[in-house]
Amino acid sequence: MTPQKLKIAAAGLGRMGKRHAINFLNRTPRAELVAAFTPDPTEMAWAKEGLQAVVIVTATSVHAEEAIQAMQKDLHVLCEKPLSTSIEVCRQVVAKAKKRPHLKVMCGFSRRFDDSYRDAFSKTQQGAIGRPTIIRSQTCDKHDPSGFFVEYAAWSGGVFVDMSVHDIDLTLWFFGGEVIPKSVSAHGVRAVQPDLGKYNDYDNAVGIVEFWGGKIAYYYCSRMMAHGQEDTTEVIGTEGKLTVNGNPQSNLVNYYHSGGITREVPAHYYGRFEMAFVQEANEFAEACLDNKPLPLKLTNAVRAVEIGAALQEALVSGRQIRLDEIGRRIEEPKL
Amino acid sequence: MTPQKLKIAAAGLGRMGKRHAINFLNRTPRAELVAAFTPDPTEMAWAKEGLQAVVIVTATSVHAEEAIQAMQKDLHVLCEKPLSTSIEVCRQVVAKAKKRPHLKVMCGFSRRFDDSYRDAFSKTQQGAIGRPTIIRSQTCDKHDPSGFFVEYAAWSGGVFVDMSVHDIDLTLWFFGGEVIPKSVSAHGVRAVQPDLGKYNDYDNAVGIVEFWGGKIAYYYCSRMMAHGQEDTTEVIGTEGKLTVNGNPQSNLVNYYHSGGITREVPAHYYGRFEMAFVQEANEFAEACLDNKPLPLKLTNAVRAVEIGAALQEALVSGRQIRLDEIGRRIEEPKL
Amino acid sequence: MTPQKLKIAAAGLGRMGKRHAINFLNRTPRAELVAAFTPDPTEMAWAKEGLQAVVIVTATSVHAEEAIQAMQKDLHVLCEKPLSTSIEVCRQVVAKAKKRPHLKVMCGFSRRFDDSYRDAFSKTQQGAIGRPTIIRSQTCDKHDPSGFFVEYAAWSGGVFVDMSVHDIDLTLWFFGGEVIPKSVSAHGVRAVQPDLGKYNDYDNAVGIVEFWGGKIAYYYCSRMMAHGQEDTTEVIGTEGKLTVNGNPQSNLVNYYHSGGITREVPAHYYGRFEMAFVQEANEFAEACLDNKPLPLKLTNAVRAVEIGAALQEALVSGRQIRLDEIGRRIEEPKL
Amino acid sequence: MTPQKLKIAAAGLGRMGKRHAINFLNRTPRAELVAAFTPDPTEMAWAKEGLQAVVIVTATSVHAEEAIQAMQKDLHVLCEKPLSTSIEVCRQVVAKAKKRPHLKVMCGFSRRFDDSYRDAFSKTQQGAIGRPTIIRSQTCDKHDPSGFFVEYAAWSGGVFVDMSVHDIDLTLWFFGGEVIPKSVSAHGVRAVQPDLGKYNDYDNAVGIVEFWGGKIAYYYCSRMMAHGQEDTTEVIGTEGKLTVNGNPQSNLVNYYHSGGITREVPAHYYGRFEMAFVQEANEFAEACLDNKPLPLKLTNAVRAVEIGAALQEALVSGRQIRLDEIGRRIEEPKL
Repeated sequence: MTPQKLKIAAAGLGRMGKRHAINFLNRTPRAELVAAFTPDPTEMAWAKEGLQAVVIVTATSVHAEEAIQAMQKDLHVLCEKPLSTSIEVCRQVVAKAKKRPHLKVMCGFSRRFDDSYRDAFSKTQQGAIGRPTIIRSQTCDKHDPSGFFVEYAAWSGGVFVDMSVHDIDLTLWFFGGEVIPKSVSAHGVRAVQPDLGKYNDYDNAVGIVEFWGGKIAYYYCSRMMAHGQEDTTEVIGTEGKLTVNGNPQSNLVNYYHSGGITREVPAHYYGRFEMAFVQEANEFAEACLDNKPLPLKLTNAVRAVEIGAALQEALVSGRQIRLDEIGRRIEEPKL
Repeated sequence: MTPQKLKIAAAGLGRMGKRHAINFLNRTPRAELVAAFTPDPTEMAWAKEGLQAVVIVTATSVHAEEAIQAMQKDLHVLCEKPLSTSIEVCRQVVAKAKKRPHLKVMCGFSRRFDDSYRDAFSKTQQGAIGRPTIIRSQTCDKHDPSGFFVEYAAWSGGVFVDMSVHDIDLTLWFFGGEVIPKSVSAHGVRAVQPDLGKYNDYDNAVGIVEFWGGKIAYYYCSRMMAHGQEDTTEVIGTEGKLTVNGNPQSNLVNYYHSGGITREVPAHYYGRFEMAFVQEANEFAEACLDNKPLPLKLTNAVRAVEIGAALQEALVSGRQIRLDEIGRRIEEPKL
Repeated sequence: MTPQKLKIAAAGLGRMGKRHAINFLNRTPRAELVAAFTPDPTEMAWAKEGLQAVVIVTATSVHAEEAIQAMQKDLHVLCEKPLSTSIEVCRQVVAKAKKRPHLKVMCGFSRRFDDSYRDAFSKTQQGAIGRPTIIRSQTCDKHDPSGFFVEYAAWSGGVFVDMSVHDIDLTLWFFGGEVIPKSVSAHGVRAVQPDLGKYNDYDNAVGIVEFWGGKIAYYYCSRMMAHGQEDTTEVIGTEGKLTVNGNPQSNLVNYYHSGGITREVPAHYYGRFEMAFVQEANEFAEACLDNKPLPLKLTNAVRAVEIGAALQEALVSGRQIRLDEIGRRIEEPKL
Repeated sequence: MTPQKLKIAAAGLGRMGKRHAINFLNRTPRAELVAAFTPDPTEMAWAKEGLQAVVIVTATSVHAEEAIQAMQKDLHVLCEKPLSTSIEVCRQVVAKAKKRPHLKVMCGFSRRFDDSYRDAFSKTQQGAIGRPTIIRSQTCDKHDPSGFFVEYAAWSGGVFVDMSVHDIDLTLWFFGGEVIPKSVSAHGVRAVQPDLGKYNDYDNAVGIVEFWGGKIAYYYCSRMMAHGQEDTTEVIGTEGKLTVNGNPQSNLVNYYHSGGITREVPAHYYGRFEMAFVQEANEFAEACLDNKPLPLKLTNAVRAVEIGAALQEALVSGRQIRLDEIGRRIEEPKL
């Protein structure tokens, strides 16, 4: 009567890696964490017996390689976003996964598993706001004065790829994964981390993606928030609007004092999305064990990186990018 | 083509008196403030020519006497609440007013003129919450460490008469002026102003008034708020609930800082109710000039003081008060 | 390397019983649910081998008996509140538990395990609001038109024992478990369930408990909410105030539509407190396994029922109850 | 002892004209509305005796001409925004006003007179958020299905000139009037009013203005809101953030019902900004009577239109606009 459990290994035990490992260990009843290791090949070999799946939470630069290795060992893969900051590499992973359709390969976009986003999506599906037309979405981190994010920018792919990719993924969810960008504009500043300049990155950036078919998404990403994590999304339809996290809060406490009324805000995204990660682990286990469709497609993860990379290019080049109805770049007409 | 204006005098130019005077002077287009004076009889005589109305904002102890004098001079009267802390004196004013039905005599309960309370009342009238059954209402002042409120307690009538009388008036509005109390319980503490003991008053008090016919109101009054003025009302019906000022705020600004998100709160009741006082002045002028019914009955003002006095008695005596269906006290049965 | 797990059985598999069982099964990594059963003695016998603990979620009327039986079998006990609606029976359980100090016996008051309440408590301990002086707390359920709550009233102990006992427990937490009631007043109505009269119960009730030492708690309990579960607490101190759940919400979604802006509310208390139940299961397991102090004392659970029963008595009798400084009833003086 | 009053005429008595006239008539104690008329020259002549000032609330197309005529008659001018949709015409008015420095000529941007914006500005000046770096601001109107806004688009100047000009003015206030745009991007859709295409206008548009010196403003304007007027501003600084109207509301009422908790939203901008218009009238009167500086410079009004027109051009052309550090257009480099 013992139900089958998903035997999973965790690759990477850094900040996020530990969290994923603990979620599979303790908070995913249908999973059994049987190994946790670094990309070391001998450890990989050690785990090859009996392993059914791997959750990859290593450095972004080795995500794709490890995902491919895992698929070659016939393992299901849950990979932290992004698959890669290189669109080409992303596509290789997708191609590999297509060849092994019995494997479940998912790139985790945690917001898709968040109760509030799901409620908003469900309301949208039910027609509560008419036709979704405009999306505003932001990923804003608490300012970290340690300088960590400067070095991180060396390989993060830039703020639109690293941060806004979540907002872009939400856009593909709410607008539908088939929408095609028509133009991309972006502008940024380096307000508190001028050293980001050496990697052509920014600490605040705003971008607009116009889609064919009369839809627009606009994004703000920042690493300068004094108050904490603030990831807010608005989905504006022809007949109504939904907001998610319009009023950030850590919990349900309000403190009334001589300066007014104050509520606190999560310091980090894990404070906001912890239960979404738990949900993700559980749904991944279920999809693997019951051979059910994954809750989000791998190709979407690639499209989100594509759009993020276009925004980053527009940001760095200071030039708008325009695309035709099948997604090909339109060169600027000569003046 | 000059429209008739209400010629009004202001009796009392203290903190509130000045505000009423300015409201009639500048913010009540149909009124003309022709005199502003203290209860000095010679000034009263000086103003007797042409005066049509008086707004009484003197010390509570002389409200009734001045209201009666004004009626004897055939003037309309707008009197700050309460008419008197003595129920007997209140009734004398009502009796005098009944003899001069052509005069408009109103005791100002500012919350009746507040947009939000009016919206809540209108929704209640439209059946939005079914049958109003429970009211929770509070009048909470910012803590004033100066000791002012200790001396003020000598003649204020006590916290339930001075502060909760507004909440009681709201109760009579939302439940209907004809409701009859069935029992009255109250308890209080002296948390920050122990000297209030010399006048048998309290700085925090909670009271319950049960009405015949299955309705209950419960009140909290306090002079201990760190954050400012917080006057909140809930009207709970069989099919819904309305809150007024459930989230106190000075304005529409939120400040996001390293400690969280803060909004400020009005420091005083005038910060909360300023526009209600302006509305009151305008409607009083209109009722006088056009001989229209006053927006609230003078008898209600007396009933509010009656209930407030019963709460105060329950508070000071530490004993519940019970009443029969026509409002007579029921003596406690012997044990 | 396998860590020790708490082997626990679930007694009672009704609505709440199932939830507790699932929490210990799936969401309490250090526990192992080894049996789940009804109070049937043969099943009890079956489980006697190897069981270390039992979670009792049967009908209130058998809580105490089962808790005592479990202790006699040398099992740790987590018992849903209340131990009993009879104070005498509660005390018997406490007496039995005192004789077996190696056993962990806890009565679950879920709000003590809720993040927001804990944050408020922590801020209070840090002096954020000065000296806690007034508590307002309410337990309000969504209206259930099925009539279920009428029959439930036959044995629930009444609304103050069944519902407000949570608010009373919070009071003992924030004011300190040693506070002694000085007077108790309560009033109620039957607004939507008139049949509650046959069990002397009410669907809306308001009560005040004044404590010796200058503290007051006031409570509202209702089964008439149209909008859902609304459990709100205010802790008002000499220098500030904390609210928990002042703005009820299901999640972080706001829906903007032609009628305004709407947010939803949990339909039931489990929607509000699910994660608190999970936390409770985990902390209970930890206390048992590591022989650590329980997060709340069993005697508090008895005191909360005592105060609830006094409120219920005041409610039903229509008479205030007064007590001396060591908690003995003061008979009303003859008039 | 009669204080001097500002004798003012109202030009234009349409929807907004009436409101301005009433504000000067009834709610501006230091002003006297002596005439109200249309641009008819004979009426203008009639009023020439004794008139000190004029408030121009006619069609946008005659604002400038009337303002100039009024100045020629030596009248102070309060002109509804915009002076003109033509930058050239705007500049003519400014030039004319410079030649008559004794006249007070102001273009009304009502948000500058709103309590909440002023509080946010004051906090910004006090350094509460460090250096203002990013501004997000939106002007969103309730959807009007009548088709009015299609014809209105024929002469409104387009959504960025007509609507976002307020947000641009706020940007010039919070960033300082001297900021110079570096690049301008904009994208729009016609989601509910496809006929706007005949005037090259849009019902939803998003734009970004990057300024020299490391500042960015981004704007959203829409005429598609189901819920009502929603004008929200965020000012994001290096050390904090301020929001104005992050939670739109008509008043302080919340309605709890079986679908959740709902608050209403103003249907129109006058519902949001009524008191700001009153404040504007009073401050204009004061500046005229006491020869005090106007609260906002006429040149700012021109700059706001300039930036709005650049956004509109970027929107219609689908091309980014870039400018050098002294504000001259940079032609796109050839590819």
